[in-house]
Amino acid sequence: MDLVTLRDVQAAAVRIERIAIRTPLLPFGEDFWLKPENLQPIGAFKIRGAANAIAALEPSAVITHSSGNHGRALAYAAARRKIPVTVVMPDTSPKVKVDAIAALGAEIVMVPPPQRLEVAEKLAAERGATLIPPFDHPEVIAGQGTIGLEILEDLAEQPEADVIIVPVGGGGLISGIAAAVKALRPACRIIGVEPELAAESAESLQRDRLIKWPTEKTYQTVADGVRTAPSALTFAHMREYVDDIITVSDEEILKAVGVLATQARLVVEPSGAISVAAYLYRRGFLPGGRTAAVISGGNVDPELLRSCL
Amino acid sequence: MDLVTLRDVQAAAVRIERIAIRTPLLPFGEDFWLKPENLQPIGAFKIRGAANAIAALEPSAVITHSSGNHGRALAYAAARRKIPVTVVMPDTSPKVKVDAIAALGAEIVMVPPPQRLEVAEKLAAERGATLIPPFDHPEVIAGQGTIGLEILEDLAEQPEADVIIVPVGGGGLISGIAAAVKALRPACRIIGVEPELAAESAESLQRDRLIKWPTEKTYQTVADGVRTAPSALTFAHMREYVDDIITVSDEEILKAVGVLATQARLVVEPSGAISVAAYLYRRGFLPGGRTAAVISGGNVDPELLRSCL
Repeated sequence: MDLVTLRDVQAAAVRIERIAIRTPLLPFGEDFWLKPENLQPIGAFKIRGAANAIAALEPSAVITHSSGNHGRALAYAAARRKIPVTVVMPDTSPKVKVDAIAALGAEIVMVPPPQRLEVAEKLAAERGATLIPPFDHPEVIAGQGTIGLEILEDLAEQPEADVIIVPVGGGGLISGIAAAVKALRPACRIIGVEPELAAESAESLQRDRLIKWPTEKTYQTVADGVRTAPSALTFAHMREYVDDIITVSDEEILKAVGVLATQARLVVEPSGAISVAAYLYRRGFLPGGRTAAVISGGNVDPELLRSCL
Repeated sequence: MDLVTLRDVQAAAVRIERIAIRTPLLPFGEDFWLKPENLQPIGAFKIRGAANAIAALEPSAVITHSSGNHGRALAYAAARRKIPVTVVMPDTSPKVKVDAIAALGAEIVMVPPPQRLEVAEKLAAERGATLIPPFDHPEVIAGQGTIGLEILEDLAEQPEADVIIVPVGGGGLISGIAAAVKALRPACRIIGVEPELAAESAESLQRDRLIKWPTEKTYQTVADGVRTAPSALTFAHMREYVDDIITVSDEEILKAVGVLATQARLVVEPSGAISVAAYLYRRGFLPGGRTAAVISGGNVDPELLRSCL
């Protein structure tokens, strides 16, 4: 299977320059830094992959079946390039999510949850639109990988990064970061983090084959952005480039959300805080050294945030 | 009176490079951007002025009488350069503030509130330490002005900035920004914002003389970082360079804190949110065009933040 290369990620970095923010690396204690992707437009790193896929593929129209941060990101990136965008959403989606995507100018198609992928594929074929999935695509992975380039650049002088901690859901984010970083600095360890309740990538790596857990289990974690299992493509990247995947409890995730709000002044969603939870509460499972944690997103329910303060 | 020049601010930008963060400019709606200084180490723009004063003056030891963000900033910047630092604090200071400054390695001297300045001056003389006040100093003002350079750089291509909105307390922040921006782009309007309950700079500009309000009045605003009146030095900058100062109510300030948390994913203190409150709720008092609002800091009590969500 062809893996994403450093050159793919470097090309993505140029393509996304005017849509994604160059997020800063924020010092947060001794030899520890935060990469706050919650500050991106639409509040998540997904803008990078979506913007790169659109710029690289030059589609006449795009479509996706993600109702979360990727759906919002694709709608935002498509609007910036004035390309029609359709988002197929489960008819059970909360109104606030539907409104956020509609406000970006996307056409919304509501379907029963199990039909999402099928309807998206059918509409793509009918309309000649390009289907851009949330993580299972080389250009999406390459876009997310630009975060790795930026971390290495920002830590290059001080001296270099020893460890990068990355939240893992479908695995697009860690695949891109790992592919770029291992090419530039093989000694840097790439550590994934999953909630204990949705640790499919950790188990897959351990057993060396792709494992899926029942959604009844994974949907219990509060970290709703990382309930997904990897694809064959992202799993191939993880086998090749990722050093370890560790897990954190939901309790630790919520504590990290509170710490980030009060001490780093960042509003972070549970999925975005799992990397910091690992650093704060599972230090024994991490290699030592100069460490950066990726904060993947910040779209958290105000009620939930309030309960973490 | 000698005002701070563009050259002073440009020199400051080089001096503070390794201590302050180069904060990004975050798009937040059509033709509106946020400059999130709450993301600085210690959570406020004050790190810029403190770091510049220390680097420019090369003192053997420093002292200040601010117990707020400037005190923390000076302690942080001094520690990074391994210079002894003393912070004279009112003996009524909350323990959390004292601990935060002590944790940075500063010596704390507790005194009854009215004696702060006097004790600081006496200790400075006795110990040969340099007194670095929170805003009434050209090198502090020059350091804060680096924010203006960064905003113009980041908006230079898209095309340029038409309006910059800045919170006003003692006036160091707006003085530095205005001095730099008016030299580079005279057409850009610099608009200050104060709470209605502490609008001493607005009234001073109107009457064209320095006005002080009784602290019984100014201490009523929730925006505790901007309860201060300008000094002769900062007032001279405002007269020369600031286009207007407008006011916002405490209710509007607290609403802005909530909007920033839920929609911009930033934890902001009331003083830091007043610029955004002006944009959201007093648009009629602002010139139109491409607008950036400076968010000055994020050290907010979790209780208060919770009440804004």
